[in-house]
Order: sequence, then structure tokens, then C-alpha cells
Amino acid sequence: MKNQLSKITPLHQEIMHQTRARVDSLVKPQGSLGALEEIAIKLSGIYGTTKPKIEKKAVIVMCADHGVCAEGIASAPPVVTWVQSLNIAKGVSGVGALAKAAGATVYTVDIGIDQPDKHPTLIDKRILNGSGNISKGNAMTYKEATDAVQVGIDMVKRAVDEGHNLIATGEMGIGNTTPSTAILALLTGKSPFEITGVGANFPVDQLDHKAAVIEKSISGKKINLDDPIDIIASVGGLDIAGMTGIMLGGAIYRVPVIVDGYISTVSAILASKLVPNLNDFIFASHASEEKSAALATSLLGLKPYLNLNMRLGEGSGAVLAFNLLEAACTMNNDMITFEEAGIGVV
Amino acid sequence: MKNQLSKITPLHQEIMHQTRARVDSLVKPQGSLGALEEIAIKLSGIYGTTKPKIEKKAVIVMCADHGVCAEGIASAPPVVTWVQSLNIAKGVSGVGALAKAAGATVYTVDIGIDQPDKHPTLIDKRILNGSGNISKGNAMTYKEATDAVQVGIDMVKRAVDEGHNLIATGEMGIGNTTPSTAILALLTGKSPFEITGVGANFPVDQLDHKAAVIEKSISGKKINLDDPIDIIASVGGLDIAGMTGIMLGGAIYRVPVIVDGYISTVSAILASKLVPNLNDFIFASHASEEKSAALATSLLGLKPYLNLNMRLGEGSGAVLAFNLLEAACTMNNDMITFEEAGIGVV
Repeated sequence: MKNQLSKITPLHQEIMHQTRARVDSLVKPQGSLGALEEIAIKLSGIYGTTKPKIEKKAVIVMCADHGVCAEGIASAPPVVTWVQSLNIAKGVSGVGALAKAAGATVYTVDIGIDQPDKHPTLIDKRILNGSGNISKGNAMTYKEATDAVQVGIDMVKRAVDEGHNLIATGEMGIGNTTPSTAILALLTGKSPFEITGVGANFPVDQLDHKAAVIEKSISGKKINLDDPIDIIASVGGLDIAGMTGIMLGGAIYRVPVIVDGYISTVSAILASKLVPNLNDFIFASHASEEKSAALATSLLGLKPYLNLNMRLGEGSGAVLAFNLLEAACTMNNDMITFEEAGIGVV
Repeated sequence: MKNQLSKITPLHQEIMHQTRARVDSLVKPQGSLGALEEIAIKLSGIYGTTKPKIEKKAVIVMCADHGVCAEGIASAPPVVTWVQSLNIAKGVSGVGALAKAAGATVYTVDIGIDQPDKHPTLIDKRILNGSGNISKGNAMTYKEATDAVQVGIDMVKRAVDEGHNLIATGEMGIGNTTPSTAILALLTGKSPFEITGVGANFPVDQLDHKAAVIEKSISGKKINLDDPIDIIASVGGLDIAGMTGIMLGGAIYRVPVIVDGYISTVSAILASKLVPNLNDFIFASHASEEKSAALATSLLGLKPYLNLNMRLGEGSGAVLAFNLLEAACTMNNDMITFEEAGIGVV
């Protein structure tokens, strides 16, 4: 991984400069297509062409269980991770249905489901049968965390090798707002009692219990906060590790990655600690309803485009943003310039 | 028109109730798909089916000139209305390109362009060669305003007859933020000096002049503020009238209408004065960057889904929301229920 990260290069500044000049010359008041203009210019810098084009899209969904579920921090039983992963692969879950409608490939990755069996519709990258109970110890070893991040990087390579040039992140892991909030608490210094949310409809009157479990998970551990791998090993999860890898993979293989909601955003923050210019390669999608999603997004420093009060996860918000990146390319490639239209710049 | 409006019926409550029950039973935490769930339920109430489906989409772009341009309230010369209308029809303007990419039909309507000629690519519904200079008199007669609104209603009928069941609104009319702001000032009682924005890159240092022209336009006229037709005739424009008609047409012919940005929203507010339950049939799309767009949206009472800092108009933001209404249908129709998945409701 370190070797791969050292080879990440900056965006193509000259090409972005040329693209901006073209965008400014299109038949519209300068700047009037706002975020679409910025997206087109960023895509041109990633792809290295003044006419960026989305070829094939994929959403990579990292599925894993969390030992901390034993503490009663989720409404649904852990087996739902397994059942829903199969539904995602079948195209009948939230992200499954939305991705199919968007014409996107769904890679459903078993990176750590807690089941005796594997399933042929899931991509078998299982590191562990679920991560450890973080309120009683570490989530995994440092090596396991490293391997799980590498899975994400490798999945991006596979998606790119299979013709995709736009990736969205997703996850399925009952209980995974708990490690996400543990990470956010560590990175911000905020108390879990202040930032813990309900995740997938966890009862509000038991939120203090969930926060207490998170508090216990981050207390008394020696964690190197400058090392995201150590953070993942200590209080993270395999889905989070895999998504951190997807973000890194985007920068390594130069494909844009669309970040989903709360858990994806926390993973992106971890990745940005390894790649300082990570935000050049990733895009936020929607403003999740989860309590501390806005905090996470502001920490990452990206602005979501969609306000849909969603909080499902799975990648459901990220796949809705495919359309916006495609629209940005359409604007850039299919609109004519003032000169072509025979009128002066307005 | 009055006869048509009297026949508007409420949403199908029983079908919405059934749709909500289905949406709540899908394999996701209840409510976790937020706005997509509400959109699906509203569409089911409009179409009268628990399985709403978008068949064909259209954007209707109302093109007209504004006599008030003589006062120097716009950066671009009025001839740009004509040139850009042709570009829209050709599919090379902002909305033209985006609509084509979305697979939508573009109806470009000449409802009042100030040109000696007509053009075969524009649908000829011209009421006047541009509206009057509102700072020196009325925009048009009461009958002309009524006829222009009827054009919008009739265009929805045509789109529906041609197989479309989802409509977006758009406009092209150099100077049209001026009558829009005049209308908003009348309806809110706010001073034009407080709410006037730059529209299509009008110089900030000349904003006071634009506000003064608007102030002059609304002063000393006897306007019946309860009668949107009188408001349009006094200080409106033909594009605004046409879009008001599109909103009414949505309710009359029971097709959802997606409202674009500032000018569309002002038109929707006028329509809602004629049809109290108008919001049952229309959807906001994006939060426009124009200064008083948020004020207009809050007055209308709908929440935009997209935050893209756009302010082009033409319908460019509305066509980006097609994807969200389609996604809502996909969620409703293609996700399975907890029962079908063999797990209990979470």
C-alpha cells in the first residue's frame, strides 16, 4: 500500500485550466451552472482530458459484521448484515435497486461477515468473521486492518480493469454507526454523548447506552491518531477499512470516487490522513440525516449536492449522484460556446 | 381556464395510504430513504396507482422578451432571448444538452419573443412581440395574460397527449428576474432594494438601479393582489404567465411538474393562488443561487433537493431532478419487502 500511495500524482493543472476556459466560454452566464462547472473541471483534472466522460459506473459495497453488536447498540440482529448483503447482490435492496436503475455495476464484497458460510453472489474477501467487540478490546490487528484497506484498493483496480471509470462507496454492517462515531469522537475530541445518533432507527431513549459503549471503546486505549490504520484496528470495522481503501484506490488509479453518507464520510476522513490531496479525487453526494453526518462532512471539507433526508447507507445516496457527474460532462461536452453560437460573452 | 380549474380533484388518499404501507415494509429502516419515500407516495397520489412509473419526461421552456430591458436592467441584449431559444431547441444550451442526456423531450415555446420572424424549431404560441415596459405601464392586458396562462395549460395537455407523464418548467427571457422580483415584492411587501439580485451576472454596482426600476414598476398601479392574472398583466411577463399555466396544467391533467429556479418558483406561487392544493402536484428541484430564490421557495412551501449553486434558469435545475423522481419509483417498485426477504421489520 505505501508503495502505491507514494505514486499518487496531483491533478492535471494545465488541463483543468483549459477546461475552465472552455466552461467559461459556453452559452450561459459565467459561473451560472455552479457545481456542475466545478465537477467538470475536477473530472478533467482526474482523467487528464478536457472532455471528461463517464464510461461505466460501479458501486462497491463493503459488508462486514461488528462484534460490538453484543453490547446492544443496534436495533437489528447481526444476521441482517448477511441477509441484506445477499439482497444487495440480488438488486432488491435500496442500493441494489437504485444502482440497477442507474445502469451501474454492484460489487458486493464480503470483507468480514460473521457467518460460517460464504455465498457465491458475494465477492469473497473476508478477513475475519466480524471484527472484535471494540468496547472490550481492539476491532482487529494492525495487519488485518492493513489487509482490509488493501481489499478496497484492489477492488477499485478490479472495477477499473473491468471498464469502470466512476466508483461509488457503500456499506452494509449492522452496528457500524458505533465504530464510525468512535472514530469521529477520537478525531474531533468530542464526547460520544454529544455526537452519537440513532443510525438505523435505534431507540432515542437508549442513545445514552450507545454513547456509553462508544465512550468505553475509545477509553484507555493507546491509539496513534496520526495513523488511520491504527485507528481502524483499535475502534473501526472491516467495512470502514474497506471503504477507506476504496478512497485510496480512487487516487491511486485516478478514478473519481463518490462518497455516500456518514460511514463513508468517516472512512474518507481516514483516507485523507494518508493522502493529503485526497479531496481532489472524491466527491460528496448527499447530506445524510444521521446526527453527526454534517460534522463529518465539514471535517472532510466537501459539500454534498443532495438534500434528501436519507440515512439508509449501503451507498444509496452515492449512486443518486452518478447523474450529477454525468450531467457535468454533458454540460462540458455538449453545450456550444458563445463563439459557436455567434454571440458575445454575457 | 376557470372551468378547467374547477375540475381539479385532490390526491388519491387511499392509494397514498396503501403506497406508504408498502414503502414502510421495504427492506430498509422505516423512513431511511427520506425524500425518496415522500416523492413515491406523492406520485402515487397524483397518478392514482401504488406503482407509479415515469414513462416519458418533457421540459417545456417558455421564451419571451421583456420591454423593461429598455431600462438597462440586464447585461445581455434582448436579442439573446431569440438566439438562445434556438439553441435550446437545437439541444446545445444548458437545458438543451441536459434534457437530451436525460432522455427528455424539449418543447421550446415562443410565447412572446420580440422578433419580426418566427422560427420553425420554436412552437409558435406568440401572444405579443415582447411584453410592455413595466416601469412605464402594464406588461400586457388582462386578456393577454389570461391567454398566455392558457398557453401553458395547453402545452401540458399536448405533452400528456404525446405520452409524457412528467413535466419540468423552464424559461428563456432576457430581463426576466426583474418582473419576477416585482411580483415577489408585491406578494411579500418587501422592498425591491432588499430583494433584488444579479440575475445573469448583472453588475453588483448597478443593482440599486435595477431595484429602482422594479420599485417604479410596482408603484402607483392598482393591482388586485388576490388575482394572479392581474399581477401578471401589471408587472409580469409572458414567460412567467406561460409557466404559471404549466403549473396549473399539471394539476388539471394530473401530471407532476418539477419547478426550476427563481422565475419558475415565482410562477408557481402565482399558480398556487388559483389552486390552493397546487403543491400536491409540483416538486421543487434545486436551490437557486439568485438572491431571493430561498425567499420565493419558502413562500411556496416546498423544499429543493439539489444544492448546486446554479442560477442559469432555462429549466436546467428542473431536468436534473428527473432522476430523483425516477429513483423514487425504482425504490417503490423494485425493492422487496421484509416479508419477501424473510426477515422481520427493523
